Amino acid sequence: MYAITIPDPGGPEALVWDEVGDPVPGEGEVLVEVAAAAVNRADVLQRQGFYDPPPGSSPYPGLECSGRIAGLGPGVSGWAVGDEVCALLAGGGYAQKVAVPVGQLLPVPRGVDLVTAAALPEVTATVWSNVFQICHLRPAETLLVHGGSSGIGTMAIQLGKAVGARVVVTAGSAGKLAACGELGADVLVNYREQDFVEAVRELGGADVILDVIGAAYLDRNVDALAVNGRLVIIGMQGGVKGELNIAKLMAKRAAVASTSLRARPLEEKAAVVASVREHVWPLIESGTVKPVVDRVMTLPEAAEAHRLMESSTHIGKILLRA
Amino acid sequence: MYAITIPDPGGPEALVWDEVGDPVPGEGEVLVEVAAAAVNRADVLQRQGFYDPPPGSSPYPGLECSGRIAGLGPGVSGWAVGDEVCALLAGGGYAQKVAVPVGQLLPVPRGVDLVTAAALPEVTATVWSNVFQICHLRPAETLLVHGGSSGIGTMAIQLGKAVGARVVVTAGSAGKLAACGELGADVLVNYREQDFVEAVRELGGADVILDVIGAAYLDRNVDALAVNGRLVIIGMQGGVKGELNIAKLMAKRAAVASTSLRARPLEEKAAVVASVREHVWPLIESGTVKPVVDRVMTLPEAAEAHRLMESSTHIGKILLRA
Repeated sequence: MYAITIPDPGGPEALVWDEVGDPVPGEGEVLVEVAAAAVNRADVLQRQGFYDPPPGSSPYPGLECSGRIAGLGPGVSGWAVGDEVCALLAGGGYAQKVAVPVGQLLPVPRGVDLVTAAALPEVTATVWSNVFQICHLRPAETLLVHGGSSGIGTMAIQLGKAVGARVVVTAGSAGKLAACGELGADVLVNYREQDFVEAVRELGGADVILDVIGAAYLDRNVDALAVNGRLVIIGMQGGVKGELNIAKLMAKRAAVASTSLRARPLEEKAAVVASVREHVWPLIESGTVKPVVDRVMTLPEAAEAHRLMESSTHIGKILLRA
Repeated sequence: MYAITIPDPGGPEALVWDEVGDPVPGEGEVLVEVAAAAVNRADVLQRQGFYDPPPGSSPYPGLECSGRIAGLGPGVSGWAVGDEVCALLAGGGYAQKVAVPVGQLLPVPRGVDLVTAAALPEVTATVWSNVFQICHLRPAETLLVHGGSSGIGTMAIQLGKAVGARVVVTAGSAGKLAACGELGADVLVNYREQDFVEAVRELGGADVILDVIGAAYLDRNVDALAVNGRLVIIGMQGGVKGELNIAKLMAKRAAVASTSLRARPLEEKAAVVASVREHVWPLIESGTVKPVVDRVMTLPEAAEAHRLMESSTHIGKILLRA
């Protein structure tokens, strides 16, 4: 098969479409013939050499895909060759075929086409596990989403609204904010023009903050939290080490968590995926929550797709058709 | 009545035993004739002028007491004059009488004398709410308790062991560590001689850390956490602002929370107290968990008691008999 390989980490040109050996599905895995993969910021870090795949996973980038099951490894039940699926991956989505543990498979939701389904696994699993399973966002609470127009952001807005929360987003342009507003975000903050802490404080603070900036926002995120607030950090675009003011955190009886999905053990990923299927899939199938796709490119165009992601001009997911 | 007043914040001598007006129990409150109060580090901060009582609470120090109900405010049911109780307070325990919201009352556990019961409310509510309600310590997990010989520490050791956790403690002397060992602590770390991070890492990391040091331990506490670990900070004896390495936190999918009990709204305190009565009181009445009392002094000796607490030579609680 062909896959995007990274012979030498570096800029977008480091991504090379090359012939490689086919993956072989192991015990409890299926082989998926990829219809499309989606681009994540973690793929950029992997391309740069900063984020190696976990031991035992595919060396090729790609944390999610859609496609058809083309083969079953030993001990697989409940899935059949030809099933249309999408999947959360530890790597290997930028390829014509990928082996996937069955716990990370999801059926393509009714009403979503096979290519578009590649936009769903990572954002639904990330938002569901962090905002709901870890931070327990409840109806009528306020959710602050940084980077509201990203793939993660567009899903967080919709899931936040679906449970009856008030959603505040930050983004860096009027166009991005307008897109967030169309998805249901209640309060739109252009971080280039307005202090998000002030905007959120006027609303009584954020009960939950979903953050991708990390260190550069840590102190202001704590300032923006409500009493009993929960901050979860899933990206570090603004650095790794930040000053935590414990007195502020204590006065609010608040918490700071940080997680990633990729490194979790199989059983934890399977539990997240099962919960996504139970709670999020019905919202997608009813049309309440929609995948947001900026554009569909092709796998050999991965370098161009990475340039687009690094320019941060996209809204929603960038897909790569196989 | 007489109470310990703080006319001018400062050293232990700032505590003045003086005649003051009797408290009047309001709606949903009872008047307790104090048998004993207990000393907490927060009382020292209040004496120094760094920790004002929450609005509407007694200006006198004292966050817990035992005694007999001497009067009922309007709308109180389920309690009667003469009942022997202990209570979590927002202040006012260093006095002959104190008004207490009924949600913060606990019966004196069978087998515990009235004076000794003053040692229980704050430590049980603090340990239960932080280690169990917030951090969800589970059987076979590892709990790291900093300051194992403190009132909080001695209760955390016993409750950790009661649920089947492994308990690691830090303390600064052989005598304190021996006391922790007698209470059941499995691993004893003299922080003057040994790095607690190394000691805990040998065990696979701490699933839950109960910390009273704050900033000075923040980075090392994160180092000591296991995957999925939870750090809860309830004191800042080592400073307020610390560097948080978000990458370390993310790699462990860990969380840092910070709380205090005193400022919580009445309904939250009542929920904690109800849970303590349900889960902790049976362990005390069965003798599994014991109050640990360093010594019993008298309320007019409060200044001397504060000197003792600031010397950090005590083991367990310091009580002040009325």
